[in-house]
Amino acid sequence: MSTDYTFEGWMGEDPSSAEGNMVWKEYEPKPWEETDVDIKITHSGICGSDIHTLRAGWGPTDFPCVVGHEIVGIAVRVGSEAEGDIKVGDRVGVGAQTDSCLSRDGPCEACEHDEENYCKDMHLTYNTTYRTGGKAYGGYAVYHRSPSHFVIRIPEGLKSEHAAPMLCGGVTVYSPLKVFGAGPGKRIGVVGVGGLGHFAVLIAKAMGADRVVAISRRACKRDEALQLGADEYIATEDEEDWSTKHADSLDLIICTVSSPKMPLQKYFDLLALNGTLVQVGIPEEPIPLSAWALVPQRRRLVGSLIGSPKEIEDLFQLAADKKIEPWVEMRPMTDANQAIVDMEAGMPRFRYVLVNE
Amino acid sequence: MSTDYTFEGWMGEDPSSAEGNMVWKEYEPKPWEETDVDIKITHSGICGSDIHTLRAGWGPTDFPCVVGHEIVGIAVRVGSEAEGDIKVGDRVGVGAQTDSCLSRDGPCEACEHDEENYCKDMHLTYNTTYRTGGKAYGGYAVYHRSPSHFVIRIPEGLKSEHAAPMLCGGVTVYSPLKVFGAGPGKRIGVVGVGGLGHFAVLIAKAMGADRVVAISRRACKRDEALQLGADEYIATEDEEDWSTKHADSLDLIICTVSSPKMPLQKYFDLLALNGTLVQVGIPEEPIPLSAWALVPQRRRLVGSLIGSPKEIEDLFQLAADKKIEPWVEMRPMTDANQAIVDMEAGMPRFRYVLVNE
Repeated sequence: MSTDYTFEGWMGEDPSSAEGNMVWKEYEPKPWEETDVDIKITHSGICGSDIHTLRAGWGPTDFPCVVGHEIVGIAVRVGSEAEGDIKVGDRVGVGAQTDSCLSRDGPCEACEHDEENYCKDMHLTYNTTYRTGGKAYGGYAVYHRSPSHFVIRIPEGLKSEHAAPMLCGGVTVYSPLKVFGAGPGKRIGVVGVGGLGHFAVLIAKAMGADRVVAISRRACKRDEALQLGADEYIATEDEEDWSTKHADSLDLIICTVSSPKMPLQKYFDLLALNGTLVQVGIPEEPIPLSAWALVPQRRRLVGSLIGSPKEIEDLFQLAADKKIEPWVEMRPMTDANQAIVDMEAGMPRFRYVLVNE
Repeated sequence: MSTDYTFEGWMGEDPSSAEGNMVWKEYEPKPWEETDVDIKITHSGICGSDIHTLRAGWGPTDFPCVVGHEIVGIAVRVGSEAEGDIKVGDRVGVGAQTDSCLSRDGPCEACEHDEENYCKDMHLTYNTTYRTGGKAYGGYAVYHRSPSHFVIRIPEGLKSEHAAPMLCGGVTVYSPLKVFGAGPGKRIGVVGVGGLGHFAVLIAKAMGADRVVAISRRACKRDEALQLGADEYIATEDEEDWSTKHADSLDLIICTVSSPKMPLQKYFDLLALNGTLVQVGIPEEPIPLSAWALVPQRRRLVGSLIGSPKEIEDLFQLAADKKIEPWVEMRPMTDANQAIVDMEAGMPRFRYVLVNE
């Protein structure tokens, strides 16, 4: 069976595409397998990684490349061996990961424990080639083909434009909040009030954390942080002695900032005994870290990378149950070039979602 | 009641004392309190911190200073309000910590949870002034006075010369091994085969870890590491591709090395998913750390500082039960100056213990 639809989307052809020079093109999706699902895309979130990849900022990009890994749409073709009981017509999503070994080469600890995002053979949703051949193309497009294991059904009560940015931005902070025990009795800090940071505030509150403190450089984001539900706001460049004033007051910090210039040592000062700082941003340069930041209070520095399909499901359910409403601005898919330029300029509050009309 | 003994020991009077220029002198101990215990010292381990402090390498030292914080001896005077049911004549020890707030200024989370070593008002055994006044002098001496809360009884079956270096060197690695779950099912790496590292190998084996891998720079320590009980040895400067060859093979690494030049990134490569590296050495300079070392496998970097009185007790009991025999070389107390010079030259295998004869 061949498809009666064609795959086309916004193609980046070289690093200049990151400046708003993507071109609309048809392309060949991965070869169909009976474990796949085709999705007619309705919504596609814009993630910072899209722009990093288009400008080849995290290493070489395999151009041509369609980015976008916060993909929501309707299942229009479901393989006979697809997982997850997906039906044609279901509303589904695909995040930043499209495949992993799934223990096909022998037992994989990560894949067997719902931690596919840590599989050594993890494949991202774009800028990768599938195990069985064929390039992976992302969500700035009209259709998307994905292995069904990484296609997540979206529960009733969760809007598509809200689900889309949860598929990467949301789950990237949900995963460490869950793993490191955010909830009643815990005091959570969130460094950076942007796409990921705004999710961390919303989700930590929804998980029932005692206290959520948003931390950013300038006082100008205070009102937004408090509107999101933060109990307190720290402006690190506008408040003197912030790290001594708030010392030892947090159990868990989610750091969404990826500048090597960030005052990491002082963030650690905010942590109480046994506190954990989770780094979800990846600075391009190594960060200098003194052992004195960690040793005297048995503090922990942890890395965390996106989330698993199970965690996306759990986040969707939490969002539906607790009515988490991320702040998104919808932009027509036709405006993708301008949208990534605006994104890079820091304009969204807090996430853009491209919409096929 | 005044004492019929005098306090005298090896006094460091300036940083040159670290080169073997301590002088034997009488000094005034802390003012007696009824919560104190006086100890007639029989054994006193030599710890790297002693020499760091004598040469004022970790910041200014409050000279004059008697170092030594692996103190074993006989209780000769026990205050009427002393804790721990200590009797005159008991064999007891004092480690690197001599006091903490013990919730005397209001509830202290650390002190209430057997984590006095993380109390914000923790006092080290030397180079500090007590809360109630009086300088703290360490164990290169004939008598030692300590608040009873930090005086630990030594179980039968554990030799004094073995107990002494456990009070700091031993418990510094026991604590993170315990907290981070070393035992059956776990694969442990130990970086550095010196005083602390040799304890980490012995203790991890005694705790029943599946596999203990010693990691040092040169092949020359291989035989000793295997004699200590290591299942495998990695010589990082003599084996090519060691970090890829042994990638993802360990659950927990205890890093006892404190050079900022150590290949920290490659140590992380040895850790499996969710693996933890505990840094117990404190390099004098910040270590550059790339987020890529942590993020892709949710790895953790943790600091850990000595151990609590409860952990010292537990380690003593483990050592007595499992017959842990640290490698110590006994030196007469009169040879202390030569012993610290030899220690600094890396000669002990693996710990010196000064003995009063």
